[in-house]
Amino acid sequence: MIVDVSQKILIVGLGLLGGSYAKVLRRFGFHISAITLEQSSIHYAVREGIIDEGSTEPDPRMIGEADLVIFALYPHVFVEWIEKHQHLFKSGALLTDVTGVKRSIVYRIQEMLRPDVEFIAAHPMAGREVSGVENSTDKMFIGANYIVTPTEKNTPEAIRTCIELGRLLGFSNVSTLTPEEHDEMIGFLSQLTHCIAITLMTCNDKENMEKFTGDSFRDLTRIARINDLMWSELFVANKDVLLDQMNLFIDKFTELKTMLETEDVEGMRAMMRHSTERRALFDKK
Amino acid sequence: MIVDVSQKILIVGLGLLGGSYAKVLRRFGFHISAITLEQSSIHYAVREGIIDEGSTEPDPRMIGEADLVIFALYPHVFVEWIEKHQHLFKSGALLTDVTGVKRSIVYRIQEMLRPDVEFIAAHPMAGREVSGVENSTDKMFIGANYIVTPTEKNTPEAIRTCIELGRLLGFSNVSTLTPEEHDEMIGFLSQLTHCIAITLMTCNDKENMEKFTGDSFRDLTRIARINDLMWSELFVANKDVLLDQMNLFIDKFTELKTMLETEDVEGMRAMMRHSTERRALFDKK
Repeated sequence: MIVDVSQKILIVGLGLLGGSYAKVLRRFGFHISAITLEQSSIHYAVREGIIDEGSTEPDPRMIGEADLVIFALYPHVFVEWIEKHQHLFKSGALLTDVTGVKRSIVYRIQEMLRPDVEFIAAHPMAGREVSGVENSTDKMFIGANYIVTPTEKNTPEAIRTCIELGRLLGFSNVSTLTPEEHDEMIGFLSQLTHCIAITLMTCNDKENMEKFTGDSFRDLTRIARINDLMWSELFVANKDVLLDQMNLFIDKFTELKTMLETEDVEGMRAMMRHSTERRALFDKK
Repeated sequence: MIVDVSQKILIVGLGLLGGSYAKVLRRFGFHISAITLEQSSIHYAVREGIIDEGSTEPDPRMIGEADLVIFALYPHVFVEWIEKHQHLFKSGALLTDVTGVKRSIVYRIQEMLRPDVEFIAAHPMAGREVSGVENSTDKMFIGANYIVTPTEKNTPEAIRTCIELGRLLGFSNVSTLTPEEHDEMIGFLSQLTHCIAITLMTCNDKENMEKFTGDSFRDLTRIARINDLMWSELFVANKDVLLDQMNLFIDKFTELKTMLETEDVEGMRAMMRHSTERRALFDKK
């Protein structure tokens, strides 16, 4: 494609991310349809001009007309959807996704997929602590990162299209990683951070602490408001990597604890200076 | 006092917090002087109308004229300052502070202080990842919490004045705690969060991760940009409590790790639901 707005885009799973994709892409003039569970989401999205049309069923016409299909589903639902409905895709259709884990999804789907249809995986590194198409926004991707995870089965054209899609959506940085590199990166940057946030939020049940807190605690626990169904599935799907990252964290945390026990102020200060220096890299550009 | 704007306020240590106090209080019409190390901070603050006058030395006239003295110094510097210069206070002067630990400071200073001068301790739960009077702002305390930590040595008048000061500064919630309760609360809400942030920032030195990160990691490491001199001192001053809180965290984190290892999805989901429910309490009102 590469910005051919005459093409039709189908979004499967019209939640926060799917809705935000739709908002941005429709602004460019693409025809956007959506398949999602809730009729209320479709009503809302049509009324707000976020999509052109939608269905709560895997409508054969909508699926058969789509040039690009974007999947925003839970990992296991995504795999089941492809198994059941892939006979409905238009020949030559391109599929992509937003799934937060890659190794367990990408190879499996590429393996089972019809040879005349291509799946190029991607992960938009953006989210909010609220969900649903009603909270979607076309500003969500500004300043954010987008990761494309091609495999040997992908064509250069599909990879280019997927990169172009990331740019169209407004991501500030579009990169490619292998599914393995992606899962390692995400195990640390996203899954470990969620593990930390929910632990911090639940490890001390003292009452009334909200009256005494500063912003540090609020920042570290923003993502402690979490979709338990989705995240438990993502954690298990990346279990080996996430356990490694959790161990890395525990080792370093224990190192800090030992420095505090022995009042090794110089050691703590060196760790803090390292932390300060390294954090500067992560400011939004 | 209780909003008697004819009184003179002296701020000792004109950094981010001291400067922000000055900005708000001067707006009410108080005469504000400041003693701080850097001449450049005084030049800036006078030029910007943040203070009326300032000195890099413990000026006897300024100290002798102050009805209220606010200390915004590192804990050990604060104690040394009182030891050296308390003979200069006006009889009847009220002292308060912004120090992040209380047990190790409050009793010591109240013990050594002249009987005709009173110290009522407080902790403004506000901060930014930048420092210096140049970054001070009169908006810093909106939505934030302020904790007064009286002891048996404090008079009801001083406690009321300090509470009134917190309200004047614009804090949304002003509470009182004992120094012991304060240190336990802060060990969890502030110090543990900083320990977690610097650990997360330094436990994995893989390069180029900033290209792949989402906002979760940025949020959890905002405070990983840290003043190593100040925080190592605060950690050591609250060592027993902080070690307890670090252990609470490690225990819960290890529980989560075990659930992941055994793929106890129901257990992880219950923890996430608990986390989500508890986090709702901490939204800014």
